[in-house]
Amino acid sequence: MMPFTPASESAEPSLEALVSQTVGADFPEDVGSVVPQLASDLQEIDARLFETLHTSYPQLADAANYACRAGGKRVRPLLMAATHRALGAADTRPIHALAAAFQLIHTATLVHDDVIDHAELRRGRPSVPRAFGLPAAIVTGDFLFVRAFELASEYPRSVILRCGEACADLAEGEVLQENARFDLSSGREHYFRVIERKTAAIVSGALAAVAEIEGASNEVIEDLAMYGRALGIAFQVRDDYLDVYGDPDLLGKPLYSDYREGNPTVLSLEAHAGLDGIAKAEFERLFALRHKQPRDLLRLKELTDRTDAPKRTVDEAKMWAERAVASLTGVPAGPYHVLLAHLAREAAGRRF
Amino acid sequence: MMPFTPASESAEPSLEALVSQTVGADFPEDVGSVVPQLASDLQEIDARLFETLHTSYPQLADAANYACRAGGKRVRPLLMAATHRALGAADTRPIHALAAAFQLIHTATLVHDDVIDHAELRRGRPSVPRAFGLPAAIVTGDFLFVRAFELASEYPRSVILRCGEACADLAEGEVLQENARFDLSSGREHYFRVIERKTAAIVSGALAAVAEIEGASNEVIEDLAMYGRALGIAFQVRDDYLDVYGDPDLLGKPLYSDYREGNPTVLSLEAHAGLDGIAKAEFERLFALRHKQPRDLLRLKELTDRTDAPKRTVDEAKMWAERAVASLTGVPAGPYHVLLAHLAREAAGRRF
Repeated sequence: MMPFTPASESAEPSLEALVSQTVGADFPEDVGSVVPQLASDLQEIDARLFETLHTSYPQLADAANYACRAGGKRVRPLLMAATHRALGAADTRPIHALAAAFQLIHTATLVHDDVIDHAELRRGRPSVPRAFGLPAAIVTGDFLFVRAFELASEYPRSVILRCGEACADLAEGEVLQENARFDLSSGREHYFRVIERKTAAIVSGALAAVAEIEGASNEVIEDLAMYGRALGIAFQVRDDYLDVYGDPDLLGKPLYSDYREGNPTVLSLEAHAGLDGIAKAEFERLFALRHKQPRDLLRLKELTDRTDAPKRTVDEAKMWAERAVASLTGVPAGPYHVLLAHLAREAAGRRF
Repeated sequence: MMPFTPASESAEPSLEALVSQTVGADFPEDVGSVVPQLASDLQEIDARLFETLHTSYPQLADAANYACRAGGKRVRPLLMAATHRALGAADTRPIHALAAAFQLIHTATLVHDDVIDHAELRRGRPSVPRAFGLPAAIVTGDFLFVRAFELASEYPRSVILRCGEACADLAEGEVLQENARFDLSSGREHYFRVIERKTAAIVSGALAAVAEIEGASNEVIEDLAMYGRALGIAFQVRDDYLDVYGDPDLLGKPLYSDYREGNPTVLSLEAHAGLDGIAKAEFERLFALRHKQPRDLLRLKELTDRTDAPKRTVDEAKMWAERAVASLTGVPAGPYHVLLAHLAREAAGRRF
């Protein structure tokens, strides 16, 4: 028998607390006023999502629920609801199924990523493969993809295809990333190709789909796709920074996973570029090790500390956040416009 | 870098040869006349499938093509085209995208199954995880699912949901199977729950979807769902038999995978029921071993040989084939009706 018993669930923060957390502490005043509204949107999206999981597949429901509970910060549904409202929607119900679908796609990818990366922890709890075993993790990911497409099936074909392209981008990004593992010579261009597909495409596709459903012009749809793409890149570059310089308790997972797995990031590529002589050679050698000891990881960090790579990485994320903000020109002014700009900057400045 | 180079491709038989092979040697005369027509249908379905894979995802295209080439016997698309024509369609184009979608779903499942089962060979060639590595195999499966849903997106929502339910059934079946591994006490009822989901649901869903698209009555849709379900079960029970008593060269994979992986089947459950005393205890002990030696596998076969389990398994498959045939009452008489009946019996009597 498989160990089909999830670890005990830790209490989750309320959605309002979660939204406040994501929005951050020093938000502009008019942003604060929309938090309860968005928390209520997220609650309905969550309800739609969990309703989808609880239907006649008891064996999968456990692992699927486990994967979706403590569902992280709900950044994607939050951005989708905020975008919908920013475009003038008084009621976000028309996008709830779509937001649940994109959240399921995101979660499915995390589950399969944890299989691929042999990750033990996710958001402070055992990962799905750790808690349920590899076979269950693979099919749970499949099941979440399927449920996502079932949710998406109520939308026009063009919207379903946006979901599909986002998923295909995610898969392509994963293979591109594998191709460059342990290989610092893959370079910045390759890195950006990876994260555009692995992180940015789903945000971009989700917001373009929301704009399409709300009947926005092609120009506004394109703007929001650009905003999502730039925000996604800012988010990922910050993620790579936090993987070395973040607080593991806040992050809910150990540091140095990119060093360990040999995933080149802006941080490691800039560190490598900033070193020379013996230190550069040592960095290359350690980075390429398939099995790194804790001292190897700490040494990679020490070498990174000697360069301006940390600052360059922080600045790179901020630059993408500003590109995201600059893409919002077609979105009507108002508190939701302010919120979207604020969320892009938070993605680049967040601590977890 | 990943070893992203597929093994050399062996020449594939023509689709007409493939259809003739699947139809078998001693078919009724009027079945022979429809073979070229069905081969031409399969060719168009194949073209639609491969067209879907060749679009802007170069990293995935290799592994996805590899998984779909030597795409087996195309039993599902063949049954779909035959069903469509049996219901009176003069042109199967309306179901080509759907047949390609179901074939992709089937292939995606095989790729993920090979990851789960650590299978080295599939249809005489290295499996996808063996040829491309585990990460690529996981995302290639995901990609094939996604492409399947993109193809399905051109159909009405009810048809898309039939695809979704078939996929969810497949995932649930996989977890149910995992739950019973190495456990002969799980019993026949559990076994049938597994194969209804893992094998029968996709055939049943595919044929019901074809009937729906052709505008058949609810009764005929139900009949074809039943036919597909019974044929799928017959096919799987025969598969389990061939896993011990088949010819590995014809099958393209080694024998005894169910013994090795500890998957209870009609064959092993009947063998276990037919033994007693020391032999029964030995069968139980060997079956439960996580790591079996070749001599353990041969001994399991020897013990099976002593019982009437082989004959019972052959008869069980035939009984399900007759149930499939009995479900065809609503399908108009004619060569395609004869073919569908013949294919059910072939599923239960085939040698590979």
